[in-house]
Amino acid sequence: MDLVITLNEQAPLPLHRQLYDELRRAILTGRLLPKQRIPSTRALAKSLGISRATVTLSYEQLLSEGYLETTVGSGTFVCAQLPDDLLQSSPVESDRPFTQRPVPLSAYGMTLLAPELAKVRDSTLELNFSYGRPAFDHFPMDLWRRLLSRYCHLNPACMDYAADSGGYLPLRQAIAHYLSRARAVLCDPEQVIILNGSQQALDLITRLLVDRDDRVVLEDPGYLGARRTFLAHGATLHPVPVDQSGLMVQALADVQNAKLIYVTPSHQFPTGAVLSLPRRLELLSWAQKTGTIILEDDYDSEYRYGGRTNAQDNRPIPALQGLDIGQSVIYIGTFSKVLFPALRLGYVVVPPTLIDLITRAKWLCDRQSPLLEQYVLTDFINEGHLERHIRRMRSLYDQRRQCLVAALAQHLPNTVTILGENAGIHVMVKFHTHLSDAELLQRVTQMQVGLMSAQPCYLNAQSSSEFIFGYAELSESQIEEGIRRLALVLRS
Amino acid sequence: MDLVITLNEQAPLPLHRQLYDELRRAILTGRLLPKQRIPSTRALAKSLGISRATVTLSYEQLLSEGYLETTVGSGTFVCAQLPDDLLQSSPVESDRPFTQRPVPLSAYGMTLLAPELAKVRDSTLELNFSYGRPAFDHFPMDLWRRLLSRYCHLNPACMDYAADSGGYLPLRQAIAHYLSRARAVLCDPEQVIILNGSQQALDLITRLLVDRDDRVVLEDPGYLGARRTFLAHGATLHPVPVDQSGLMVQALADVQNAKLIYVTPSHQFPTGAVLSLPRRLELLSWAQKTGTIILEDDYDSEYRYGGRTNAQDNRPIPALQGLDIGQSVIYIGTFSKVLFPALRLGYVVVPPTLIDLITRAKWLCDRQSPLLEQYVLTDFINEGHLERHIRRMRSLYDQRRQCLVAALAQHLPNTVTILGENAGIHVMVKFHTHLSDAELLQRVTQMQVGLMSAQPCYLNAQSSSEFIFGYAELSESQIEEGIRRLALVLRS
Repeated sequence: MDLVITLNEQAPLPLHRQLYDELRRAILTGRLLPKQRIPSTRALAKSLGISRATVTLSYEQLLSEGYLETTVGSGTFVCAQLPDDLLQSSPVESDRPFTQRPVPLSAYGMTLLAPELAKVRDSTLELNFSYGRPAFDHFPMDLWRRLLSRYCHLNPACMDYAADSGGYLPLRQAIAHYLSRARAVLCDPEQVIILNGSQQALDLITRLLVDRDDRVVLEDPGYLGARRTFLAHGATLHPVPVDQSGLMVQALADVQNAKLIYVTPSHQFPTGAVLSLPRRLELLSWAQKTGTIILEDDYDSEYRYGGRTNAQDNRPIPALQGLDIGQSVIYIGTFSKVLFPALRLGYVVVPPTLIDLITRAKWLCDRQSPLLEQYVLTDFINEGHLERHIRRMRSLYDQRRQCLVAALAQHLPNTVTILGENAGIHVMVKFHTHLSDAELLQRVTQMQVGLMSAQPCYLNAQSSSEFIFGYAELSESQIEEGIRRLALVLRS
Repeated sequence: MDLVITLNEQAPLPLHRQLYDELRRAILTGRLLPKQRIPSTRALAKSLGISRATVTLSYEQLLSEGYLETTVGSGTFVCAQLPDDLLQSSPVESDRPFTQRPVPLSAYGMTLLAPELAKVRDSTLELNFSYGRPAFDHFPMDLWRRLLSRYCHLNPACMDYAADSGGYLPLRQAIAHYLSRARAVLCDPEQVIILNGSQQALDLITRLLVDRDDRVVLEDPGYLGARRTFLAHGATLHPVPVDQSGLMVQALADVQNAKLIYVTPSHQFPTGAVLSLPRRLELLSWAQKTGTIILEDDYDSEYRYGGRTNAQDNRPIPALQGLDIGQSVIYIGTFSKVLFPALRLGYVVVPPTLIDLITRAKWLCDRQSPLLEQYVLTDFINEGHLERHIRRMRSLYDQRRQCLVAALAQHLPNTVTILGENAGIHVMVKFHTHLSDAELLQRVTQMQVGLMSAQPCYLNAQSSSEFIFGYAELSESQIEEGIRRLALVLRS
């Protein structure tokens, strides 16, 4: 039998395993045919210049797996029971030559192929005014590690399947308390469902409430992450414009049959407008009248900077959820911006009638969020670290925000309008320039400055020369240097 | 003005915050009407017996939020701009009286209401032969903590959004290597997508490939977690029977237009049968011919116990994925059973044509799996801890398995047939008894023994007196005691 087998003594894979792989491939690709006799262990060992024990090991594995069979007295053969049709239909010689047949997709799968649903690439530029990253170097990681260690002592409770897919109950209690103190959200702990960040909240809620072609109302401009989720579910988008008091609720009067309305009332994304109280009440009234569910994304409400001296004014304004008397609001919160994004912990607060359903959905989706982190976060909140960290970050971000505003005023006098600077961790800046957004982005990129145009956030409304400046992650000197370079571009 | 306000000096909430809450509620529920004048700070402080500063704090907050307004010289009033219709339509006096209007659900949401999709409650019995839990007390948690500490030193890379939603590339490389060594899975690291356990893999793949009423083929009996996922997506289930060589592939000849076939070839759940090589090849051939995607769930393939003395035989048999030459197989793996369930890390290995799509889906679902754990797991694999742990657990579980088999033979001679004992971390046991499954479960429950009937795993095929015995979590003395109690029930 002429069987070419290549073995490499330098390779990390042991020789018997290499031989096994080669013989198996030979059988599957038809180089060795069913019932074909293969060399004896002695003969093959000799021909390959390896030990007989090595060949025996390979043969035994192939025998035990049904590739080979032995007949006493006459030798070893390729198993006769291999189905002929497979061997004949693919007598391939090369390594795994893939048939490039497209996989048939579901409607959801097909929708995801749309170019606007592609993942947005993060900028890797030196001075990146990207939105959403916190000040990583100010997170109390040592403390976090100590808390992790506390539970890393063979604690089966935090290694096991969770008793409740909705999350670790003490964490839900801690969040309910925190939300009632900080956001005037009124809920029982059971209404708080722990999820993997706000994106899973958006996805699950949309999945549970929105069918293809259902109408979803959203702010224009608005948050792309939410819009993409609604698009992925095949929803019909109904954009409503935004002004300096947030969503223009009066425009809802004509909207019929909406399943869901998505809003960012604390700090409208990207304009930074705060939804006024009268509009909040009007929105709630409209939602109750029309039976529409309000999805309130409170994504960075922790950070609010007052112009007044009274510290009381720094308190974030109350959530829609707390004003609601009709079970119309689903509230979304996340720890991605307050702690760090890779933690992947967020939550929804749902009306009591939805608790069971969303818990089931979470269970079917991915069972539960990681428990160890839930234990640690519980202590982090209950021992006061969360609110302490928020206070520290609020003052840090306030400095960075003031630095950004001052740098814009100094380097670009009369060239910019700043929006939404009283809250959150970004501002929206409108430039008075003849450059197109694309030209401007191209030029700042050359200077290693990362900026995000607000244009993709717009659906119907028009925008130009509007940019989103995240400042939480950058030091004051980085902010100043970034604006200095930007000014060079804008004044050239 | 007669305004009853109850404040509690013992409550943890500061008085000014309590007062703020009470006044806000009074405005929202219509006890205080728009334009109504409210008492001066001095008057209210006096009437409530609290300091004037406290009242001022509350008023300032309400002023800043637009609930109140001041007119110079004439006092403080409830804001006139509150929309009248809301206040009139809900003149509520009590605490948050919810309108119990049902939330309109999507087709997916409606499907989830089916009773068979309710979360299965875990047993809390003393001796629980539950399926799927590893030996928690044998996990090297100290080592895991040390690895965690390694990355808990202000490492922005593992705190940030991931560059790739498909997972941390070094982890994907480590898994691809491991799978090629241990499971003969052939893939590039990019084909490995990190997900939150195998349940997210099932959910995402089904979502991307299966529309309502699409046909999904599955083993009968089979794994409930998968069946529930397919049901939740509205799939039409096509069960195919199983014998001692696994899925009866010949029964597929008549099956037309299936989108997906779900199989557990290494250790069929729950029977424990191993899909024979001829059937594997036949299955692959059928899938290629019909364009059906094979979903290969390799849920506990790490554990295989040979009857022979040769250690080589303990090696798990190769996966379908490695035999496939047509991009027909999606391979699912999980660390829930090898490490611990609460970790929530698993993966799919997809054909190259699906990499982009599933990465997009993961991004839209929940952005990424937690990064810190991915860093730690990478080191755990690359430093040899994973395979060392698997070897240790294999020998531990082998002892427990032998103990279980011996105890069954000793206490229940001629009363049991044991299936699938050569692999995995459970066996299926058929009792020769006149007791119904319900009677038997009721009696063993009274003796604090947790058992799982195999009946719910069956769709068309019939079953009785078949039970699933997970043994990984129980010590030998617990196993013996459990079987002793079971024997008391069966012999009574």
